[in-house]
Amino acid sequence: MRGAVIHAPGDVRFEERPHPKIINPTDAVIRTAATCVCGSDLWDYRGINPVDQPTPFGHEYVGVVEEVGSDVKTIKPGQFVIGSFFASDNTCPNCRNGYQTSCLHREFVGADGCQAEYIRIPLADGTLVATPEQPAEEHIPSLLACSDVMGTGWYAAVAAEVRPGDTVAVVGDGAVGLCAVIAAKELGAGRIIAMSRHETRQKLAREYGATDIVTERGEEGVARIKEMTGGIGADRVLECVGTNESMHQALRATRPGGNVGFVGVPHGVAIDGEELFYSHVGLRGGPAPVRQFLPDLIDRVLSGRIDPGKVFDLTLPLERVAEGYRAMDERRAIKTLLLP
Amino acid sequence: MRGAVIHAPGDVRFEERPHPKIINPTDAVIRTAATCVCGSDLWDYRGINPVDQPTPFGHEYVGVVEEVGSDVKTIKPGQFVIGSFFASDNTCPNCRNGYQTSCLHREFVGADGCQAEYIRIPLADGTLVATPEQPAEEHIPSLLACSDVMGTGWYAAVAAEVRPGDTVAVVGDGAVGLCAVIAAKELGAGRIIAMSRHETRQKLAREYGATDIVTERGEEGVARIKEMTGGIGADRVLECVGTNESMHQALRATRPGGNVGFVGVPHGVAIDGEELFYSHVGLRGGPAPVRQFLPDLIDRVLSGRIDPGKVFDLTLPLERVAEGYRAMDERRAIKTLLLP
Repeated sequence: MRGAVIHAPGDVRFEERPHPKIINPTDAVIRTAATCVCGSDLWDYRGINPVDQPTPFGHEYVGVVEEVGSDVKTIKPGQFVIGSFFASDNTCPNCRNGYQTSCLHREFVGADGCQAEYIRIPLADGTLVATPEQPAEEHIPSLLACSDVMGTGWYAAVAAEVRPGDTVAVVGDGAVGLCAVIAAKELGAGRIIAMSRHETRQKLAREYGATDIVTERGEEGVARIKEMTGGIGADRVLECVGTNESMHQALRATRPGGNVGFVGVPHGVAIDGEELFYSHVGLRGGPAPVRQFLPDLIDRVLSGRIDPGKVFDLTLPLERVAEGYRAMDERRAIKTLLLP
Repeated sequence: MRGAVIHAPGDVRFEERPHPKIINPTDAVIRTAATCVCGSDLWDYRGINPVDQPTPFGHEYVGVVEEVGSDVKTIKPGQFVIGSFFASDNTCPNCRNGYQTSCLHREFVGADGCQAEYIRIPLADGTLVATPEQPAEEHIPSLLACSDVMGTGWYAAVAAEVRPGDTVAVVGDGAVGLCAVIAAKELGAGRIIAMSRHETRQKLAREYGATDIVTERGEEGVARIKEMTGGIGADRVLECVGTNESMHQALRATRPGGNVGFVGVPHGVAIDGEELFYSHVGLRGGPAPVRQFLPDLIDRVLSGRIDPGKVFDLTLPLERVAEGYRAMDERRAIKTLLLP
């Protein structure tokens, strides 16, 4: 079979790789229905994370189960399934607490590369969620979005404890930030401020429920949010970037007693204890426990309540994966959908 | 009148000072019934915070109203009152959100020094809470504790979102840590682990509701907490010290999805964004909005539910304030009560 491999920053190739096999009796192998490029992959693509050797790439997927191991009980061949980028047993104490991305037995599904024609999924029963039936083609992009960006945007809003009526600001207008707008809306936010300076992203943010757009960044962005909130800051701020600048923009734009949910993978983020103390801001982040939200998110997609698949503004055949990276790196695309 | 003044680290004097007057029409002047020495004062006493000039000292107080300014409506001369170390109008948006220590008009009551025979209280209507009647003498230490340490311990538990049945660990066995044990108990914690290596403090922690004592610190303390919690960490950890070591002990002893409430004033605390991200721990701290909790805490004291006054294990006449500092600095006393 064929799949994407990153050889060096900027160098992604689509090449022949071994067909995945059942290794552990809890594994499943799926035939990929759709996969995509993640903003977090760009850290490697741009050489900010080191790329030491050719590495299979991608960690988002939906597909049809081909084969299951002998210990797999609930997942069956032929089912259409969605899973998170972290495999989890869904039974350990951390999973039971809803933090499947801290599963005591977690494995990174992307280790074998999900931008491929077939994928091995460890801990299949705990990791995968099957749809009630084969989904209509039109739902596939939104279901795929649930495997990472929609689940991550949702977690940003949950981690920030968004409540009905809240004023919510979203830092970052990538696919996760846009999905965070959807989440804030679904959780009942009264006002949603998208911080974005890109017209196409602003437009989608508004479609998803943003009531206001702020184009200023950094201290100017903070000042603008305070101006809009009676001088005190937003109730909740969703940080969907991961730089030190964006984190501090988020923390300083939040009112005392408010919350920041941070889901951008932090790169060089340092928080001063004294500043955090006097801010009275609550802070929670982490790799989103997507598995916790999947059943609910799948329902919302299939019932037509949410349509996160619109974040895919470029669709390519999987073999043109390199072009998908280039388009996102150059910000010509919000997010690239790849079809085998 | 006379009051305490810190002249230099280790040099606290009780000396003649001007009798406080109404400066703003929203002020009150109270005759001090009791005051005390705070663990946070020790940062100055030990020279960790600079002492640039002779400075009136102390920020905890209960007393009887002597005089009120012309704009004071609800507080009346003769009332027995308790207030926080930060004056607040209790009407601004931050106050209405329950964060009176971020009041847009806050003033530090301790600026004039509360270890004194009389104290000027700014924003009297917003700041002070009167007891229904003159309290019995036996209740005065506990009411005084509510003005800071009990309110701060309570906030640690609230900021950490302690819920019924939780396993709660408390880092720090000073007066605030001990009051945090009371708070965890009152909020329904199922198991309360006090981290302490001092026998008298362990004893009081147990009396207040601690079910377990851990004497190990740092990484050993973290390992011990994990061992006691099925390998994952405590649901909530209350950080009541303020050093970088204690903060990291707290963060690492908390399970994924758990919370740290931090109320020790941070000194040199630096938090790595990536570590916080992968921990899945929620974090909120700050100067406790004591005013939010005062009516409830006063009820709990007067009804005999809680007895935070036991943290005072040394009582001295106010004029011997210097001795009170020495006793706490040398850890001979948990907390010194001072009576004018």
